[in-house]
Amino acid sequence: MHDLAAQLAEVGRLCYARGWALGTSGNFSAVAGRNPLTLAITTSGVDKGLLEPSQIVEIDERGHLVRGSGKPSAEAALHLTIVRARGAGAVLHTHSIWSTILSDAAGDAAGELAIEGYEMLKGLDGVRTHEHREWLPIIENTQDWSAAAPRIEAKLREHPEVHGFLIRRHGLYTWGRDLQEAKRQVEIFEFLFEVMGRKRGTTWQA
Amino acid sequence: MHDLAAQLAEVGRLCYARGWALGTSGNFSAVAGRNPLTLAITTSGVDKGLLEPSQIVEIDERGHLVRGSGKPSAEAALHLTIVRARGAGAVLHTHSIWSTILSDAAGDAAGELAIEGYEMLKGLDGVRTHEHREWLPIIENTQDWSAAAPRIEAKLREHPEVHGFLIRRHGLYTWGRDLQEAKRQVEIFEFLFEVMGRKRGTTWQA
Amino acid sequence: MHDLAAQLAEVGRLCYARGWALGTSGNFSAVAGRNPLTLAITTSGVDKGLLEPSQIVEIDERGHLVRGSGKPSAEAALHLTIVRARGAGAVLHTHSIWSTILSDAAGDAAGELAIEGYEMLKGLDGVRTHEHREWLPIIENTQDWSAAAPRIEAKLREHPEVHGFLIRRHGLYTWGRDLQEAKRQVEIFEFLFEVMGRKRGTTWQA
Amino acid sequence: MHDLAAQLAEVGRLCYARGWALGTSGNFSAVAGRNPLTLAITTSGVDKGLLEPSQIVEIDERGHLVRGSGKPSAEAALHLTIVRARGAGAVLHTHSIWSTILSDAAGDAAGELAIEGYEMLKGLDGVRTHEHREWLPIIENTQDWSAAAPRIEAKLREHPEVHGFLIRRHGLYTWGRDLQEAKRQVEIFEFLFEVMGRKRGTTWQA
Repeated sequence: MHDLAAQLAEVGRLCYARGWALGTSGNFSAVAGRNPLTLAITTSGVDKGLLEPSQIVEIDERGHLVRGSGKPSAEAALHLTIVRARGAGAVLHTHSIWSTILSDAAGDAAGELAIEGYEMLKGLDGVRTHEHREWLPIIENTQDWSAAAPRIEAKLREHPEVHGFLIRRHGLYTWGRDLQEAKRQVEIFEFLFEVMGRKRGTTWQA
Repeated sequence: MHDLAAQLAEVGRLCYARGWALGTSGNFSAVAGRNPLTLAITTSGVDKGLLEPSQIVEIDERGHLVRGSGKPSAEAALHLTIVRARGAGAVLHTHSIWSTILSDAAGDAAGELAIEGYEMLKGLDGVRTHEHREWLPIIENTQDWSAAAPRIEAKLREHPEVHGFLIRRHGLYTWGRDLQEAKRQVEIFEFLFEVMGRKRGTTWQA
Repeated sequence: MHDLAAQLAEVGRLCYARGWALGTSGNFSAVAGRNPLTLAITTSGVDKGLLEPSQIVEIDERGHLVRGSGKPSAEAALHLTIVRARGAGAVLHTHSIWSTILSDAAGDAAGELAIEGYEMLKGLDGVRTHEHREWLPIIENTQDWSAAAPRIEAKLREHPEVHGFLIRRHGLYTWGRDLQEAKRQVEIFEFLFEVMGRKRGTTWQA
Repeated sequence: MHDLAAQLAEVGRLCYARGWALGTSGNFSAVAGRNPLTLAITTSGVDKGLLEPSQIVEIDERGHLVRGSGKPSAEAALHLTIVRARGAGAVLHTHSIWSTILSDAAGDAAGELAIEGYEMLKGLDGVRTHEHREWLPIIENTQDWSAAAPRIEAKLREHPEVHGFLIRRHGLYTWGRDLQEAKRQVEIFEFLFEVMGRKRGTTWQA
C-alpha cells in the first residue's frame, strides 16, 4: 500500500506538471487488494503539484474508508465502477485543456469522439496497427456519480473495446492493468486530443 | 512573517514557471496581521523566477512600509482594497497570455467575462456544481490605483459572488482565505481562460 | 557502449520532457561499432520519461540482439537502413504534435513538406544560409518496416540532400554524424514544424 | 569575467528551457570592460541547454578573440554595434516561435511591428504607462552582418526610443544596461509577441 501511494503521488505530480491536474482537479486510484476489493485513491481537495503518499487513502468496494484519513474523491464511485466493469488495476482521471474542449465540440453531438489512423493509437492496450478506429463515449457531466454509475457500468460492459471516456466539459477517464499502463494511456489520449484540437484550429482541414 | 514570505516567494516562482509572471510582472500578498491590518507583499521590479523571502516587505493599511526594505508594489492599494472588501487572507495578481487576450476580446464590450458549465469551476470557493455561471468584471487599466480603488471596492461589495476580476490588457486578480486557496483559484481561472481562448481560435464554435 | 547508452537515455528523457516522445513513442539509436556494424537502440514499450541505460540494447546489422535484454524497437529496420544509406552515427525518431499534423496536411498531397527561408535552417548539417529550401519526404505509415526499408533506402540514396523525413500521422526521422548533431536537428525541425503549423492556424497567411 | 560568463550561461539555459534558443540558435553577450571595450559572448555552434561558462569567450571591439577558445558567434558584429550605438551593458538574441512568425507577417510589410496599450510594456526601460506605443524595426535577414552593421547602427541612432528589433524569419535582439535588464526585456517582448500572435489566430479580432 505504501509503494502504491508513492507511485500514485508521483503520477499526480507528473499530471500537474503537464497542466492536466491544475487546481485540485484530477483523481487517481490503483487496486490495493482484490479479495476483498480495496482501492488506493487520492483524497478530495488536494493540490496535485504537492501530492504526498499520506494524501492517498484506501477504500472498500462500497467506497468506505478503510485506511488513512481524509475524504476520498467525490468520484470514487466512478473509479470503483471502472475497476469492476473492466478488471482494471489502476484508474486515472485528468482535466486537460484539450479534453475539455473536445468533449464539448459541436460536431460530436452524437456523444462520442472518434480518433482514427494515428500511429500513436498503438500505445493503447491491444492495438497493433495505426489502421484502427478508437472511439470514446462522451458522458454528460453530473454531481451524482453514485446515481450515474450503473448507466456507465452498463456502457463499459456493452463496449469492451473502449480504452477511456470523456465527461463533457470535465475531462478524461482511462485505466490499465497497472498504473504504468494507465499512465501511458493518459499520455496517448492527451497527445491525440491536442493533435485533433489543433487541427480543427487550422485554416486547412486535413 | 518569515514563513509567509517563504510561501509567497514559492507561489511567485511557480507562477513564473508557468509563464504567468514574466519580466517583473505579477504581485502577490498575504495578510500578516489583522489588528492592526498588515500585509506581506512583493516589492516592485523583482524577477519572479528568482523571488526570495527577502524581497517580500510588510505594509500597513495605508500602504506604508513597516518591515523590510524595498518599494512595495505600485498596486499595493488594490491588494489592500481586496483584503478590506472581501476579508481575504491572500491576494494574487498574474499576467498571463490568455487573461491578457480575453480581457480585451471584442465580444466582451459590456465589461465582463462569463464562464459557464465547466467542472473546473468547482475549484472556486463555495461553488458546488458545474451548473454555475461565473463572471469576472473587466476593469479599465490605469496607472493610478489609489484613485481607482474606491470604485473597485464598491464593485466588490456590490457583487459578493465574484471570485476575481480582470484588468484590461493587464491580467487577473483573485484572492482566498489563505494563500493555498488563492493559488488554487489562479490555476482554476488560468485553466478556464485558456480553454475559452483556444475555443475561440478553432474553426468550430462549441 | 555504456556511455552511448547513457547519452541515448538522456536524449530520450529530453524529448519526453518536450512532449516529443509521450506514451512509449519515439525510438533512438547510435552506432556502437562499425566493423561489423552494431547499433545501440532503445527497446520496445519503454517509458521515455524514465529511460535508463539498461533499456538500451545492441543489435547487429540484421537487427539481431547482440548485447542486453529486451525487444529492440519494431522500427530497428528503419534505423539500420538510415545508418547504411547515410553513414549516420545516430538516428532519432520523435512523435510530436506538429510533425503529426504537418505530415497529414491536405496541401502536401504530393508527398513532401517544404520549408524555406528561415534562419533556423542553418542548424541543419551543411546549410550555410537562410536562403535554403529544405524538403522532407512524407512516407506512408506501415506496420512492416522490413518490407518498406528497401524503398526508403532507395529514396535516401536518390536524394542525398534531405536531412530527415516524415511518416504520415506518425512522426519525424532525422540523423547525424553523432548523437549531438542528430539532437540538434530534431530541435531545428520541431521548431520549424511548430512555426509552420501555427502560421497556417492564423487568419493571415505570410 | 568568470561571474559574467556564469551569468550568461544561466540566461542561455533559461532561454533554451523556454524554447527560445533551440538547436544552437541564440547568442548572448555582456560588456566585460569599457576602456578598451571588450565583450563576453557565446561561441558558435553551442547547445544552449548545456551552456557552460567555458563556452563564453571575450572579444575586443573589432570582434577579435582576446580570451578563451572557440569561435565567437557569427553575429558578434551585431552585438558590438548595439553596444556602441546604445551604450548597452548586455545584448540578448533569441529565436522564438512567435518572433519568427510575427517578423514575417504580411501586414507588417512596412518593416515594423507595433505593440500598443499593454500593461506589460512597462517592463521596458523607461516606459511608465500602458498608454505607450512600442515599435520594433524589422530588418531583412542576411549572412553578412559586418556589411549590414553600419545600416543598423544608423537606424538605432536615428530611433533612440526603440528597445529591440526583429530580423525577418530569424528572431529578436534586445539589450539593457546589464544582463538582468536585458533578460527582463526578452521576457516582456516574448510575452507580447505571443499575445499578438495568438490574437491573430483567433476568429475574433480585438
